[in-house]
Amino acid sequence: MPKTLSIKKVSGGVTAPKGFLAAGIHAGVKPSQALDLALVMSERPGPIAGVFTKNQILAAPVILNQHQIKKKTGQAIVVNSGNANACTGTQGLADAKEIQKLTAQLLGIPKHTVFVGSTGVIGRTLPMTALRKGIPTIVKRLSPSGHIRAARAIMTTDTISKEFACQTKIGRHVITIGGMAKGSGMIHPNMATMLAYLTTDVAITPQALQRALTQAVDHSFNCISVDNDSSTNDTVLCLANGLANNTLITHGTQHWMAFQALLQHACEFLALKICRDGEGATKLVTIKVEGTKSHCDAKQIAETIATSMLVKTAIFGEDPNWGRIIAAIGRAGIPLNPKNISLKFNEVFVVQGGQRVSTQADKQAQKVMRQKELTLSVSMGKGPGSHRLWTTDLSYGYVKINASYTT
Amino acid sequence: MPKTLSIKKVSGGVTAPKGFLAAGIHAGVKPSQALDLALVMSERPGPIAGVFTKNQILAAPVILNQHQIKKKTGQAIVVNSGNANACTGTQGLADAKEIQKLTAQLLGIPKHTVFVGSTGVIGRTLPMTALRKGIPTIVKRLSPSGHIRAARAIMTTDTISKEFACQTKIGRHVITIGGMAKGSGMIHPNMATMLAYLTTDVAITPQALQRALTQAVDHSFNCISVDNDSSTNDTVLCLANGLANNTLITHGTQHWMAFQALLQHACEFLALKICRDGEGATKLVTIKVEGTKSHCDAKQIAETIATSMLVKTAIFGEDPNWGRIIAAIGRAGIPLNPKNISLKFNEVFVVQGGQRVSTQADKQAQKVMRQKELTLSVSMGKGPGSHRLWTTDLSYGYVKINASYTT
Repeated sequence: MPKTLSIKKVSGGVTAPKGFLAAGIHAGVKPSQALDLALVMSERPGPIAGVFTKNQILAAPVILNQHQIKKKTGQAIVVNSGNANACTGTQGLADAKEIQKLTAQLLGIPKHTVFVGSTGVIGRTLPMTALRKGIPTIVKRLSPSGHIRAARAIMTTDTISKEFACQTKIGRHVITIGGMAKGSGMIHPNMATMLAYLTTDVAITPQALQRALTQAVDHSFNCISVDNDSSTNDTVLCLANGLANNTLITHGTQHWMAFQALLQHACEFLALKICRDGEGATKLVTIKVEGTKSHCDAKQIAETIATSMLVKTAIFGEDPNWGRIIAAIGRAGIPLNPKNISLKFNEVFVVQGGQRVSTQADKQAQKVMRQKELTLSVSMGKGPGSHRLWTTDLSYGYVKINASYTT
Repeated sequence: MPKTLSIKKVSGGVTAPKGFLAAGIHAGVKPSQALDLALVMSERPGPIAGVFTKNQILAAPVILNQHQIKKKTGQAIVVNSGNANACTGTQGLADAKEIQKLTAQLLGIPKHTVFVGSTGVIGRTLPMTALRKGIPTIVKRLSPSGHIRAARAIMTTDTISKEFACQTKIGRHVITIGGMAKGSGMIHPNMATMLAYLTTDVAITPQALQRALTQAVDHSFNCISVDNDSSTNDTVLCLANGLANNTLITHGTQHWMAFQALLQHACEFLALKICRDGEGATKLVTIKVEGTKSHCDAKQIAETIATSMLVKTAIFGEDPNWGRIIAAIGRAGIPLNPKNISLKFNEVFVVQGGQRVSTQADKQAQKVMRQKELTLSVSMGKGPGSHRLWTTDLSYGYVKINASYTT
């Protein structure tokens, strides 16, 4: 990352960059009156990059996107909430294609530049009658201020909408990135589907954009995806239209690094917003692991801690139950020497040399646990590998939301 | 397994086989007045087999047991609850050895034939003053009827004690197996520590006993250990004293197979008892996966379903949310063709060819979900591999128990 990248937060979400419009409406996919259809459009086509779920069961829109992204050009993104269009077979794929075609026709742009997304319940076909009526309506509503409703229209169990935009200067040119995201099933961000759509006015090659996005996602959304799970629908797209008029950015240059850092900043912000809005979450916990042989080892340990239900419930209970963390480390499958392990709750060491520090330290740790946001730092004393990720606690709220979110 | 093995359930727990005594007392490890020290003893020494946690952080008694079991002879097992004697360093190991030595002296048997166990809170040294007083007391209380109190004395968050005993005939000889177990952190049976102690009067070689136990554990306790997790303390021991007077059993014979089947039956019973007593569990769910290339693939898929918090909360909510099961299958990492997948709730097909069967089927599945015990069967349509395991739901109760079970 460039040493001194000055990043400025701006308003406007996905329409903050030059040349983007957006809209959100209630089309009738959700039984409630909530917004359930979003559209984002650029004035002109440009390179598009995507990162998709690693789940082998792919929702219809993901199949369609993965196919069309090979052409590397995008201009519009249309997304419904309330129905995931997953496990819907050939009918589902036909529906996704119809949405794509209809949107393209009404916008007057090529079909392959329209990307389709869905999130919601699995296994039911889309209410196409409602969508056929909704798409002409939403096209008419496109506006520079439509970003707020667009961000709301992709929500499912989210309690707040998630938007962000930021700017930096690359050479003499101001470039802007906007974004919106949804997802709140923190613990398996996967299943409650994580969607993020980023827009930018930067001029960049498709390859350079894809590399920047992949790296940004690895350090943001993939760091809240604490067990590498992913839903049938998870998607991150970034659409660039070049209207910032900067010299075309290619991979690996100083300008690329600046853009990548800006993109990662936006992704991190949205990822943390998803984490804080985790289903039933009352705490945001940063887990840092260092001193492993490799980055992979550190990641493995961090994820084992972050996915332990016993650790998560202890965090909810504000109990500095470090024995559960140590036990999670021990079963992570990474060779270790217990005597080299130390563990901190924020700045309080509770374990050193694999053993409890003191009753006093446990009491101080108890105070740390009462905070809304805290950091657990593990040191394995073995090498240069490190990893950081974010997770939440496991509360009654999580069980409630997920026991009642119905098929 | 022999085609017609007649198994008879009997009473008496660990003292049901000939020549075993047991006791359980309150020694003062637990702050409450609950029983917290158990002792099981055989009239004479015999072969002992063990299966231990795969966690790399080992509690002191596990380190001790793993060392002494190489000598393959046992005569007594002494176990405390209320304190795991884990992450206690050299002091912890010295304490475990002192318990072993003191018990051996008082029983008048060699030190290496006394096996020590602990379960409870991690990271605190044992209250040795209490234990030094308790051990002479418990030795005096040994009796044929002590099995009930012994089983109660190893409980932690368990709501019921877990005992079993059964008999069969091998040749002209009746052989008996008794057992007691503790563990209730179903979802990570690991951390709430799973202990099981089996006794038998069979005459068997140490090698044949170890092979029989390993296989039995693989098909019972390891099938509720749904994510291969294990705590710092997990231990299964089986002590045989030969008093049934049968011809010495060696590995692979018909008699070995009969004994193995009997042992597995006992282990299965105890494993299911642990599962039913899972922390906060309201349902017992059998997950069957078939039609994979290999047994390992089936196991991987079954465990991914069984450890999904979204699947578990849906089961608690009695919601036939099969989309979550399908998504779990998709992220299990096993190559698959979605079109070959089918899914049943008991006998009701809800998914066939990777798609929803009908609204009617969903309604029938809803009825299945209301049952206390149910079976989810997945067919992958690809090969002869299959696996079965047991799990529970994820309830408010689980969160409550684990948020408040304090360090």
